[in-house]
Amino acid sequence: MKEIKDYINSNTSRFLEELYTLLRIPSVSSQQDHKGDMLTCAAQYAELLKKAGADKAQVFSTTGHPVVYAEKIIDPAKSTVLVYGHYDVQPVDPIDLWKSDPFMPEVRDGAIYGRGTNDDKGQSFMHLKAFEYLLSRNELPCNVKFIIEGEEEIGSPSLAEWAKGQKDLLACDLILVSDTTMISEEVPSINCGMRGLAYVEVKVTGPDKDLHSGHYGGAVANPINTLCQMIASLIDENGHITVKGFYDDVVDLSTEDRAMLARAPFDLSTFKKSIEVDEVTGEKGYTTLEHIGIRPCLDVCGIWGGYTGEGAKTVLPSYAKAKISMRLVPNQDYRKITELFIQHFKSIAPSGVKVEAKAEHGGQGFLTPISSPMYKAASKAIAEVYGIEPVPSRGGGSIPVLADLEQILHAHPLLMGFGLERDTIHSPNESFLLSQFNKGIESIILFYKYL
Amino acid sequence: MKEIKDYINSNTSRFLEELYTLLRIPSVSSQQDHKGDMLTCAAQYAELLKKAGADKAQVFSTTGHPVVYAEKIIDPAKSTVLVYGHYDVQPVDPIDLWKSDPFMPEVRDGAIYGRGTNDDKGQSFMHLKAFEYLLSRNELPCNVKFIIEGEEEIGSPSLAEWAKGQKDLLACDLILVSDTTMISEEVPSINCGMRGLAYVEVKVTGPDKDLHSGHYGGAVANPINTLCQMIASLIDENGHITVKGFYDDVVDLSTEDRAMLARAPFDLSTFKKSIEVDEVTGEKGYTTLEHIGIRPCLDVCGIWGGYTGEGAKTVLPSYAKAKISMRLVPNQDYRKITELFIQHFKSIAPSGVKVEAKAEHGGQGFLTPISSPMYKAASKAIAEVYGIEPVPSRGGGSIPVLADLEQILHAHPLLMGFGLERDTIHSPNESFLLSQFNKGIESIILFYKYL
Repeated sequence: MKEIKDYINSNTSRFLEELYTLLRIPSVSSQQDHKGDMLTCAAQYAELLKKAGADKAQVFSTTGHPVVYAEKIIDPAKSTVLVYGHYDVQPVDPIDLWKSDPFMPEVRDGAIYGRGTNDDKGQSFMHLKAFEYLLSRNELPCNVKFIIEGEEEIGSPSLAEWAKGQKDLLACDLILVSDTTMISEEVPSINCGMRGLAYVEVKVTGPDKDLHSGHYGGAVANPINTLCQMIASLIDENGHITVKGFYDDVVDLSTEDRAMLARAPFDLSTFKKSIEVDEVTGEKGYTTLEHIGIRPCLDVCGIWGGYTGEGAKTVLPSYAKAKISMRLVPNQDYRKITELFIQHFKSIAPSGVKVEAKAEHGGQGFLTPISSPMYKAASKAIAEVYGIEPVPSRGGGSIPVLADLEQILHAHPLLMGFGLERDTIHSPNESFLLSQFNKGIESIILFYKYL
Repeated sequence: MKEIKDYINSNTSRFLEELYTLLRIPSVSSQQDHKGDMLTCAAQYAELLKKAGADKAQVFSTTGHPVVYAEKIIDPAKSTVLVYGHYDVQPVDPIDLWKSDPFMPEVRDGAIYGRGTNDDKGQSFMHLKAFEYLLSRNELPCNVKFIIEGEEEIGSPSLAEWAKGQKDLLACDLILVSDTTMISEEVPSINCGMRGLAYVEVKVTGPDKDLHSGHYGGAVANPINTLCQMIASLIDENGHITVKGFYDDVVDLSTEDRAMLARAPFDLSTFKKSIEVDEVTGEKGYTTLEHIGIRPCLDVCGIWGGYTGEGAKTVLPSYAKAKISMRLVPNQDYRKITELFIQHFKSIAPSGVKVEAKAEHGGQGFLTPISSPMYKAASKAIAEVYGIEPVPSRGGGSIPVLADLEQILHAHPLLMGFGLERDTIHSPNESFLLSQFNKGIESIILFYKYL
């Protein structure tokens, strides 16, 4: 432990400088004008992987943004860990809420600030440094492969197809990922299940052009009012989603499972305070931790239509749009749910409007067996670094492609996430605590030793 | 008639060139960066009024955008017509739907295209030219005063206050306005009643920052979903507005009044086709013409919140906003309705969100007596120009300040509008038919003769 800590401490400034070379590249996968940045960022990952000691670090083209692959095969007879990460990041808007340039990373109050510091450049970079440490001491106990993809934030549309064509190259015994959070530094946790995702964009069109609300209002279906009615009808008064067939494949958790989940320490007033809401909501009959961890939900992520500028414009707009995300639980198929949603949404359109709905992206949820050797190795490593046994938790977010990789490569994923709620990933001022960054590297090194 | 037609025909290119000097100025009253354009446009109106023969054309400051005033007093003992118009225009977005620059007017297919060609630069300009004609022939039968204001599109926040201080200057017997539509060129009409307006902006705030929809979705009130539920609840399944007390002051029309209104020719399939909707909607128990003319309504004019860019961002946003307009009927007080709405909207906020609502602007509805000499003069003039007696109609839009002016100056307004539905005011490609422009000037000249 001391040797590991010493190595990290004496290399901190180099680690940060290397990480900054990744963070300074605005690799926003959802925006076409960053296409060149994606290539630059992939190449820089390959460079850093080589520098850390990997053989065969290379950038593969896909039908979308490229994938970085690297490996170190110490003995083909030994087991293989496939490290998964992603180099793409979320858009940065609302940009005016950032306290520093999202692509000019800096350390403030013990945390690195910038887009991607946590999700997932910062977290994936810990694996490069753990790998570098073990390799430099000839202590790597197994083969290691890396795939760092560029489309996680847009639902990984190309990776599964690419992976299917590279089964031999990617063959592995487990998939190791740091792209999630733990409960807190005091209560470390390992994520052993994640929700899936179905994401749909909808459009409601009324008249073929914007109309004067005085001349037409009251006689013509207003697409914003109509969209609001349709969205409101998607969730009933008990917090149930009304899409027909939505819950068909949801497995009700056993009393034991719910009890296990309830072991995770959770303070509702701290939770409410951290996001400044006076009350939580959610599906009747479930706790807040269950709402986030084991139950599906439906959220409008964006809505727009009509006049949104300064002052008052009396317009009856031609159309309104919304982006709707559904978080799914294991056993719900995102393709089926997307289809059910689109059918349902079109079926509830009143006369006087036209409705379009299209799938944006999606992915399956999954579960990691707590009894597996890999979970036990992770638990032992984290317990040693944090001084306390980690809690198994169920995370709300999704890494859609993991379920696909699991199926293609016949290997379970293990989610050792070192993010914290305070890091506000996907939001302005994303950050990653330096203490967590260092403990993450330590934990990953020990994980390999205990595997 | 022939002499009038000859005058208009031989001066068409000069008329257009003068009108264009107004249309080229982007006098958008709702946007702060056009403040200078408002002054320029007011000065240009004063210049054109002088040129047409007015004395004392001058620009008055107000607490907002300036008012242009001009007059021609031929005999203080004679009656006085006060012409009301406005030089401000609506914003131009969505700008990409314009086929030509909104502030570079041009004639295409017999119509002038550009922002303000109809509402209200084009329509108010007809009055300058009718006045010029009568004055040049010494045929002006009465005194004429003009006020051209710069805040009609934002609810005229300053004009009433200014008019109260200028009662003597503005003293008149009737207020003449061209800022509305007629049914069609084949079925001319005179608007004898208009709806009032209450316009409110609302904001629903959930968490204090944007959150990751995976980590929080299902447990935290989503402000977009919540805003949609609140908006949906404002109108019930019969098309009734649910705001408490909303209908208290609405006077139910008599069978005779409804029969009079039903005289206006109206073809529902043409109406639907003109805006490309398959079905109309509206309050149960009333016709489409009644929905537009005599019943109040509630429309969302704009909504926005969360991620509205390209692709998918899985965000549970911090807030959502909407702009809501209520069209009111005579006897509904917009201030009372605004207050009722704000109270109601706050009262329906569920726990977990904070709700703000603020009045944006508003104005009273009003009615013009059909039995008045001014209505009869207008009817005779239009009948002569169009070859058919005009129909009395009830318009849906509102000119909020007219009710105020009526009260301050003790004079009834007369709405001789020459716009047509096809002109798409407030929308891209606003236009004004040259034939209507010419017939408007003719009708106004004859109106003065028959007064």
